[in-house]
Amino acid sequence: MIHGEIIATGAELISGRVADFNARYAARRLHEAGITVARITILGDEPPLFRELLLRALARSRFIVITGGLGATEDDLTVAAAAEALGLPLHYDEALLARLRHFLAERRIPWLERHGRLALLPEGAVVLDPGGLACGFALKHDGVRLFFLPGVPTEMRALFDGYVLPSLMELAGDAGVVAQRTLRLFGISETQLQEVVAQIPEFREGVNVGYYPNFPENHLTLTVHGQDRQELAKTLDRLTAALAREVNDLLLGPEETPLEELVGRQLQEDGLTLALAESCTGGLIGHRLTSVAGSSDYFLGGVVSYGNEAKVDLLQVDPEVLTQFGAVSPETARDMALGARGMFGADLGLAVTGIAGPGGGSPEKPVGTVYIALATPDEVEVWHYLFHGNREAIKILSAETALDRLRRKLKKTVASSQ
Amino acid sequence: MIHGEIIATGAELISGRVADFNARYAARRLHEAGITVARITILGDEPPLFRELLLRALARSRFIVITGGLGATEDDLTVAAAAEALGLPLHYDEALLARLRHFLAERRIPWLERHGRLALLPEGAVVLDPGGLACGFALKHDGVRLFFLPGVPTEMRALFDGYVLPSLMELAGDAGVVAQRTLRLFGISETQLQEVVAQIPEFREGVNVGYYPNFPENHLTLTVHGQDRQELAKTLDRLTAALAREVNDLLLGPEETPLEELVGRQLQEDGLTLALAESCTGGLIGHRLTSVAGSSDYFLGGVVSYGNEAKVDLLQVDPEVLTQFGAVSPETARDMALGARGMFGADLGLAVTGIAGPGGGSPEKPVGTVYIALATPDEVEVWHYLFHGNREAIKILSAETALDRLRRKLKKTVASSQ
Repeated sequence: MIHGEIIATGAELISGRVADFNARYAARRLHEAGITVARITILGDEPPLFRELLLRALARSRFIVITGGLGATEDDLTVAAAAEALGLPLHYDEALLARLRHFLAERRIPWLERHGRLALLPEGAVVLDPGGLACGFALKHDGVRLFFLPGVPTEMRALFDGYVLPSLMELAGDAGVVAQRTLRLFGISETQLQEVVAQIPEFREGVNVGYYPNFPENHLTLTVHGQDRQELAKTLDRLTAALAREVNDLLLGPEETPLEELVGRQLQEDGLTLALAESCTGGLIGHRLTSVAGSSDYFLGGVVSYGNEAKVDLLQVDPEVLTQFGAVSPETARDMALGARGMFGADLGLAVTGIAGPGGGSPEKPVGTVYIALATPDEVEVWHYLFHGNREAIKILSAETALDRLRRKLKKTVASSQ
Repeated sequence: MIHGEIIATGAELISGRVADFNARYAARRLHEAGITVARITILGDEPPLFRELLLRALARSRFIVITGGLGATEDDLTVAAAAEALGLPLHYDEALLARLRHFLAERRIPWLERHGRLALLPEGAVVLDPGGLACGFALKHDGVRLFFLPGVPTEMRALFDGYVLPSLMELAGDAGVVAQRTLRLFGISETQLQEVVAQIPEFREGVNVGYYPNFPENHLTLTVHGQDRQELAKTLDRLTAALAREVNDLLLGPEETPLEELVGRQLQEDGLTLALAESCTGGLIGHRLTSVAGSSDYFLGGVVSYGNEAKVDLLQVDPEVLTQFGAVSPETARDMALGARGMFGADLGLAVTGIAGPGGGSPEKPVGTVYIALATPDEVEVWHYLFHGNREAIKILSAETALDRLRRKLKKTVASSQ
């Protein structure tokens, strides 16, 4: 076990103007890898405070990850302050200087005096160079590893994942490789998920599990250590399968694929088209589906029927159904799904009608009552839910549940046709 | 000028599992009030580290704001650690104990041993009691003000705004009151906004201005100090008016009122109804409009016409228009707006058609080309935009711009009819 700390610098952070992403990202990654972060400190652009903190950190930590202040402008003070604190002279890294000149020339950006500052580093620094303008560097000092990373989150993350994490894993005595996978789940609470995981034999040892609530989903990160990347990928597959066995349909898949993309892929594979009829979700399902590039291949369109007139005139909901059962009823949901399917000439029609609140509830149909219907060429299925939360939460839960119902249906159809 | 620091504690923070909101909130509020926060430190639930940090902070800061670890469970270690570090005995606050017993009894929640821990405080603590289960407390020690606040953000914020900020303002020699207002702007960059503000005489002195990018909007916080709350409200009104004079239509209004609510209020006041025809936004405008409670009063519904068939069959877009000008054209946008208006029998029809990318662009119509049309009983207006960014950014900019066009139109109509 080694432990260290993270320092994030920037006037925009200490003034609360911008949220810190970098320190949190590093903390999460290190925690997942079983490496202890004892503290995170956020400072403004104050060299004296930074120097003092750096010296203190050197005395108590095995590693220090520092983000921000590496650029070419006046308020980028980290390099000079670090060199002063560590008693190291600053030198131009000639190889980096040449690389930067070439980089700018290729882009026809004129070379300025201040660009040179990007290559001015403390003696002994190892350049971490992802190939753009922003580089980082690593130092060893009094047995402590120091990593200086740029403040732009994408650049920071690339260097952290590619260099800092592997070298700290090695320092931690884990002279091997680490592999991680984050899985999305929907329809299970964090507590339930923890209980399920505790019961799975495959999860007993050799795997770190992190839980990250991501409303309305729950995400779970698996971290495994070993010597061989392929072997670790197989271990992650085995763990994923073991979890899938227990939670079955509640496992959506890997983090990088949102539910709307998962559904989109399935529709594309099955050669099916989809139309929507949204009431309480107001367009949120359409928004999510169309956030996927290429969704026009399978998503034909939708109707947001906020008033009853639209339900009758456009979706051909039977006016008697509306009168007898109400706009929020299984019967209306059913007619809406059929109507959407017919209107757009789609294979599938998905409909949602419900009461998002805060008004509109009744003892029989309280706020949060939602009906979801899915019309296929063969049948219409209707589901009834009672969601809790405010208007926003009920909309989000309704949209997620509708997409998830569609996903499960498509999965089942594929499974039964194979 | 006084300066101090913020300490946020919690295993969920140091593991990166949950983002810190509290420290950032306190930092932002203090910065706006002209009080310097020198550092923010995040720790896990580690009493030795906390005690060490607290002693160090006592030696260098005039105030310390501490959040988290005040609850009744095992991992709530802040009170005991602070008492030990400060050498203060712990006492039950009898008044608080009685209040808590009464609070739980009223809600028929059984009193548990651990609830008593909520009233166990260091000697000399002044209870900050918002009336629920979670309280905070304040201490003076060696001339330093310490504020202990609960970790739940809503509770933390209430106590911070109601007690911590005013008492630090007073400590800062500003024995008066502070008033703040955050304004939303759209259609102006942060740099442009800074330049505009620099030119306004009213902003020369006596006001702190903070800039907060909030894509696609820019927010600006005004902070004024004085002796009289009513006087300050007038000052804020005067500053708001001065800014409005310069940026005119780009000022949306106060932070607490999102654009969709602003538009909704105007529609309601004018007694007008609205229908949508969304193409590239895919339902996002409908989603935003329906996130406002009571939106069914003026929002009748919309069509998400992702395919051309839906544009022709439902929105009655002339097939020849589609053939001659294409789905992304001012002519199609115009027909869509008219179609939506007619289909739902609404007073106004708002339509968006564009290319969100990454595919679908051409030299004449590159990715980001968006047409927005607004049909009223009298006319149809069409606007042409070229937005930059990825698919998500283009969708967000399109939806915001469409709502903003509607807002400006309604404002103008009201102005001209007065």
